[in-house]
Amino acid sequence: MAMIGGGRDAFIGAIHRIAINMDGQIDIVAGALSVNPEVAIASGHDLFLDEERIYTDYKTMLEKEAAMPKDERIDFVSIVTPNFVHFDPAIMALEKGFHVAIEKPMTFTLDEAKKLKAKVDETDLTLLLTHTYTGYPIIKQAKQMVKSGMFGKIRKIYVEYPQGWLSTFLEGSNNKQAAWRTDPKRSGIAGAMGDIGTHAFNMAEYVSGLQVTHLCANLNTVVDGRMLDDDGATFMKFNNGATGVLMATQIAAGEENCVKVRVYGEKGGLEWKQEDANTLLVRWLDKPTEIYRAGTGYVSSYASHNSRTPAGHPEGYLEAFANLYRNFTLTVRAKMNGEKPKDEWLDFPGVDDGIRGMAFIENVVASGKSDKKWTDFVV
Amino acid sequence: MAMIGGGRDAFIGAIHRIAINMDGQIDIVAGALSVNPEVAIASGHDLFLDEERIYTDYKTMLEKEAAMPKDERIDFVSIVTPNFVHFDPAIMALEKGFHVAIEKPMTFTLDEAKKLKAKVDETDLTLLLTHTYTGYPIIKQAKQMVKSGMFGKIRKIYVEYPQGWLSTFLEGSNNKQAAWRTDPKRSGIAGAMGDIGTHAFNMAEYVSGLQVTHLCANLNTVVDGRMLDDDGATFMKFNNGATGVLMATQIAAGEENCVKVRVYGEKGGLEWKQEDANTLLVRWLDKPTEIYRAGTGYVSSYASHNSRTPAGHPEGYLEAFANLYRNFTLTVRAKMNGEKPKDEWLDFPGVDDGIRGMAFIENVVASGKSDKKWTDFVV
Amino acid sequence: MAMIGGGRDAFIGAIHRIAINMDGQIDIVAGALSVNPEVAIASGHDLFLDEERIYTDYKTMLEKEAAMPKDERIDFVSIVTPNFVHFDPAIMALEKGFHVAIEKPMTFTLDEAKKLKAKVDETDLTLLLTHTYTGYPIIKQAKQMVKSGMFGKIRKIYVEYPQGWLSTFLEGSNNKQAAWRTDPKRSGIAGAMGDIGTHAFNMAEYVSGLQVTHLCANLNTVVDGRMLDDDGATFMKFNNGATGVLMATQIAAGEENCVKVRVYGEKGGLEWKQEDANTLLVRWLDKPTEIYRAGTGYVSSYASHNSRTPAGHPEGYLEAFANLYRNFTLTVRAKMNGEKPKDEWLDFPGVDDGIRGMAFIENVVASGKSDKKWTDFVV
Amino acid sequence: MAMIGGGRDAFIGAIHRIAINMDGQIDIVAGALSVNPEVAIASGHDLFLDEERIYTDYKTMLEKEAAMPKDERIDFVSIVTPNFVHFDPAIMALEKGFHVAIEKPMTFTLDEAKKLKAKVDETDLTLLLTHTYTGYPIIKQAKQMVKSGMFGKIRKIYVEYPQGWLSTFLEGSNNKQAAWRTDPKRSGIAGAMGDIGTHAFNMAEYVSGLQVTHLCANLNTVVDGRMLDDDGATFMKFNNGATGVLMATQIAAGEENCVKVRVYGEKGGLEWKQEDANTLLVRWLDKPTEIYRAGTGYVSSYASHNSRTPAGHPEGYLEAFANLYRNFTLTVRAKMNGEKPKDEWLDFPGVDDGIRGMAFIENVVASGKSDKKWTDFVV
Repeated sequence: MAMIGGGRDAFIGAIHRIAINMDGQIDIVAGALSVNPEVAIASGHDLFLDEERIYTDYKTMLEKEAAMPKDERIDFVSIVTPNFVHFDPAIMALEKGFHVAIEKPMTFTLDEAKKLKAKVDETDLTLLLTHTYTGYPIIKQAKQMVKSGMFGKIRKIYVEYPQGWLSTFLEGSNNKQAAWRTDPKRSGIAGAMGDIGTHAFNMAEYVSGLQVTHLCANLNTVVDGRMLDDDGATFMKFNNGATGVLMATQIAAGEENCVKVRVYGEKGGLEWKQEDANTLLVRWLDKPTEIYRAGTGYVSSYASHNSRTPAGHPEGYLEAFANLYRNFTLTVRAKMNGEKPKDEWLDFPGVDDGIRGMAFIENVVASGKSDKKWTDFVV
Repeated sequence: MAMIGGGRDAFIGAIHRIAINMDGQIDIVAGALSVNPEVAIASGHDLFLDEERIYTDYKTMLEKEAAMPKDERIDFVSIVTPNFVHFDPAIMALEKGFHVAIEKPMTFTLDEAKKLKAKVDETDLTLLLTHTYTGYPIIKQAKQMVKSGMFGKIRKIYVEYPQGWLSTFLEGSNNKQAAWRTDPKRSGIAGAMGDIGTHAFNMAEYVSGLQVTHLCANLNTVVDGRMLDDDGATFMKFNNGATGVLMATQIAAGEENCVKVRVYGEKGGLEWKQEDANTLLVRWLDKPTEIYRAGTGYVSSYASHNSRTPAGHPEGYLEAFANLYRNFTLTVRAKMNGEKPKDEWLDFPGVDDGIRGMAFIENVVASGKSDKKWTDFVV
Repeated sequence: MAMIGGGRDAFIGAIHRIAINMDGQIDIVAGALSVNPEVAIASGHDLFLDEERIYTDYKTMLEKEAAMPKDERIDFVSIVTPNFVHFDPAIMALEKGFHVAIEKPMTFTLDEAKKLKAKVDETDLTLLLTHTYTGYPIIKQAKQMVKSGMFGKIRKIYVEYPQGWLSTFLEGSNNKQAAWRTDPKRSGIAGAMGDIGTHAFNMAEYVSGLQVTHLCANLNTVVDGRMLDDDGATFMKFNNGATGVLMATQIAAGEENCVKVRVYGEKGGLEWKQEDANTLLVRWLDKPTEIYRAGTGYVSSYASHNSRTPAGHPEGYLEAFANLYRNFTLTVRAKMNGEKPKDEWLDFPGVDDGIRGMAFIENVVASGKSDKKWTDFVV
Repeated sequence: MAMIGGGRDAFIGAIHRIAINMDGQIDIVAGALSVNPEVAIASGHDLFLDEERIYTDYKTMLEKEAAMPKDERIDFVSIVTPNFVHFDPAIMALEKGFHVAIEKPMTFTLDEAKKLKAKVDETDLTLLLTHTYTGYPIIKQAKQMVKSGMFGKIRKIYVEYPQGWLSTFLEGSNNKQAAWRTDPKRSGIAGAMGDIGTHAFNMAEYVSGLQVTHLCANLNTVVDGRMLDDDGATFMKFNNGATGVLMATQIAAGEENCVKVRVYGEKGGLEWKQEDANTLLVRWLDKPTEIYRAGTGYVSSYASHNSRTPAGHPEGYLEAFANLYRNFTLTVRAKMNGEKPKDEWLDFPGVDDGIRGMAFIENVVASGKSDKKWTDFVV
């Protein structure tokens, strides 16, 4: 496979590579790793790429790779550039016949997202959207338990994503991550809501199996001089009548990255937080709370399939990330071999999640600006 | 002192008595413990009251006690009846010259609350409102730390109060607590928001030292047949420009009573939850989170004054409750002796908190019904 | 009842009084509160005692109270003096017909303990030994679960009691608590092992229902100049073949008072620590760990009987302490009324626990001095 | 590099490969993956090895690889076979000029360990021993803090390693892991003490920077029919006068794998447990406990160097494992390039840790059999 973006001066590209490498099933053989040619070349050397497969722009790469013999060229690309450079390379990669892995949010606008889905449908290729948190094995367990109906009808969903790293005007200093994430030209119309709110939204819909139908949002720009929202919350109505609250902030000083989701049904509910990523609390009306743990013998096949170690050997963010790539490549390989992928393999975020995510961004920003309490969630 | 309500078949009365007894500074010498005369008398015997000070209605009690010599009669009453029987006995007690302790919410309506405040002001007597959670020593520490300015300007406040005990239509079975708390005639215009939302609101304002100026609420009645809200959330704007989210629910199946408050300022923030009641997490932008613990040598005089044991001997809800009574009686006794109460003693919830609480109920219900996103918090 | 010791300058006496007062079932009507007459009298005034029942020595008190009419005199005494002043007043109280509550360790020597038991047996009076930690409701649950056999044969017991308050030579400064507890003349032959090791030992035997038969101890005096052990550990063999480890230290800098017990059987096990006093973790070989919580509907009658609030209202050390007194007084009152106490009431530590505790002190000190690995636990 | 052992039917080999792959710095190019030729070949195909570098015995592999040109042949081998097949391949690999990574315990006997050290010294090659737990970034922080002297002299060390997976006679069913680990012919003279006690011992010495001088051990075989210890504990004396307790068990039903270490000095101490692997609790005599977190800006260079993500993205067991390989390969590569490895790179367990570990096994077993309380720790 090949990477687009993710050179020496990037953050998330390195994370993708760890996830890609972890299981020894994927080789990074090409890359257009930076828009800066020098960085692109140096980064290619870092990755031990063959000289001729270190590219300085993605278009050339996609052209050249597509022209190679089938068993030599790449199978898929990973697009790990800032948001505004997702759509074009994704479309081109699909057109050239490559599967695509892409960082979230999927595109710059909802409109792009819809076009991308059309292209995916048209090409019958596979797209992975790296909503990392759904890759945790015990989150798979959570989804399966809700799906089984054991909690009865779902009534309430709380999801939160508190961070503190943007508590100061970091984009004013020499912080590349802060700079592009707070810049509407590169990040899009949302700041915190796009960067982490989308993850929270994805978790809420993924674990509950429900879809948001209405929002009532309050978005804030807390730090002086900032151009996008750095804090917000939204009430949600779901398509089964449940309600929920989503909170996402990047100005909660001292908070790290503790995504948390709670789902309550008629008979019980569950709670997960990333800080204790291998544990799922399962609560019941009339009996003791249970602590479900990843890697145990009693979890579902969806959870087991996504663990690499027995219970008690903590697996974390990087393994969750690697699960996305593993399921994606198992699926892609099965398809390439004309086999039917297992259900467990197909359980990774894709283009439909990307559309929901972009719709969330557009709808939550619109709701934030509206004087009306509730606004429809329009896709 | 004397109790009004709190007989054999009541819940919170027994809690008040434990709090009253704990420090050996208050004697329960009289009571009108139930509207049911038989229960009132039996309950009086339970408490070893003198036969002649077991009353079957509070009016008679207040009359007779007021007619007794000063050093024999009661000093104060505790009103632990359902919400709709708070105002009348409180007014009468004050008029008869007795200090008053009263369960929250303070009255049935905001209007009553204002009248009660006028009476307190007029009589110069003291009123205790039992917002228990502000009685925890480490909550005192939290308030003092915020007040000191060490976190900079406060920017964000999250407060939540999840319960699950009303997940089913409990008022349809023979559950007295559920019955009156979900009955508009006895509870007032709010259900969960009145019962526990007021506590959450009180915590937010108490710890932050700020006041809510606007609300945007979503109230729900989740359980079929229920007459009042059993779930809700509200966004809040505070008078310094901070925003917040308050969540209170009684249908979060499996949840017990874990009130939680988080406050974030420019430089750091803090977190407390009742499940770990002696611990305050203090977070900072650039250094390790600190675990402040009740009963240690490094906490403020406000925290120390409200502990009974050294660190590591868990004090809980009943001690927090007893702290309210202890500070109230220290204050009352000082006043009766013509002394100036210490600042630490004066730190208990009173009539102004009661007005804020009743205003919260009226405003949050109004906001819940409104199509407008934000509504003013009117007192 | 009356207190012996526990005047103004004492620590544990105040704790006893809170426990005594909490449920409104016991009146403190007399006291010999200090060997210092001035302190005794001032302390009596603090407690609002009648002038004539403020005594300056316990012998006079016991004489005079015994001479009073039965319905006026005290029913029992609480002995809260340092260890070396436990035995004499206890014997005298029993001889005068009073029930006895007494701080642990029960006596100064095992020999005294045996004599005290003989006196209890002879008088058929009731003795309470305040091993507080067995008063926690969820510890009652733990004991009942082990007793039920649901974990199979018990195989392993870990119990630990880490404190840090004696990390420095505190007895060299003006610290009364440190002074007597590290003084062999007042404390006995053991320091940490007597002060907190006995609690840990009591927990191990109480929860498991087993008895220690052999010890292999390592006792240390870590702080220079100290006269007794301030740190130690012992291996234990139990009478069913199980083994265990007990650790008790007062030089674990930064530790508060987190007693912890873990018991493992063939099929599962349990864990409790005082820091999270309302929670019992119940582990199983093949299914999720369960979180048992005090105050819930699913716990045993032994646990329910010892709770005062519903789940989620943390009860702590003082309530556990009060449970000892409540069960003791329920038992005493039943006996005085010629009624049979309920099993749940009888579940409080008594003279047999006191003998085991004193035997632990003598045996663990002997084992600590021995070059042999295992020494018999001799009573 | 090449693997010896770790074929399809193995456990730890797969873990090694994840650790090896993670950072994209090591290629697995050869393997003698099983003593069963069919498994060896199939396993080689699983790893996409070139046909000619799939070997069916390690001797042939080492011969052939050593005969290849320097820039084509392997640089090091990983030995992931059961304990009794560690020494021979390690010696041969070193003799052929290959660096060696090896699973713990390093050898079958202490004598072998000493010979292996002699060979390492003689060849000046590098040996990695995979004591995974010292690879955690926050454990590096712990070691550096102790080393800095900020806690004063270390006084007490508690280390524990509770597992429950051998609570039943699992070796009697078809469990390969249980079978060899409980078999003296393949595992050596110790069971639990060799398998996990060595990890605990290594942690105690690594974090404290101290060395054990004396032991007093109690080893047990709890499960009927088992041939080696499955439970035990030992007291320890350290070379600075500190004492400690080590507990390791595989029959603590319901426990997973929660290694835990606590170290206390004169002024404070620290606590880490694998269940919360990114957190270090740092306690102090007179100020709040601090929560040090991996990935933050305030940790030492040793901790930062061993993190791959910012704080709040949990890294776990596999990343800790990968850190061992990364530091080993950074060191090896530097040496091959004639450069001086950084201090942070050199911080991985090696042949000296292996000797200490084997000495622990021999000494703890001897102490367990001895009637003497304390036995010297002889190397």
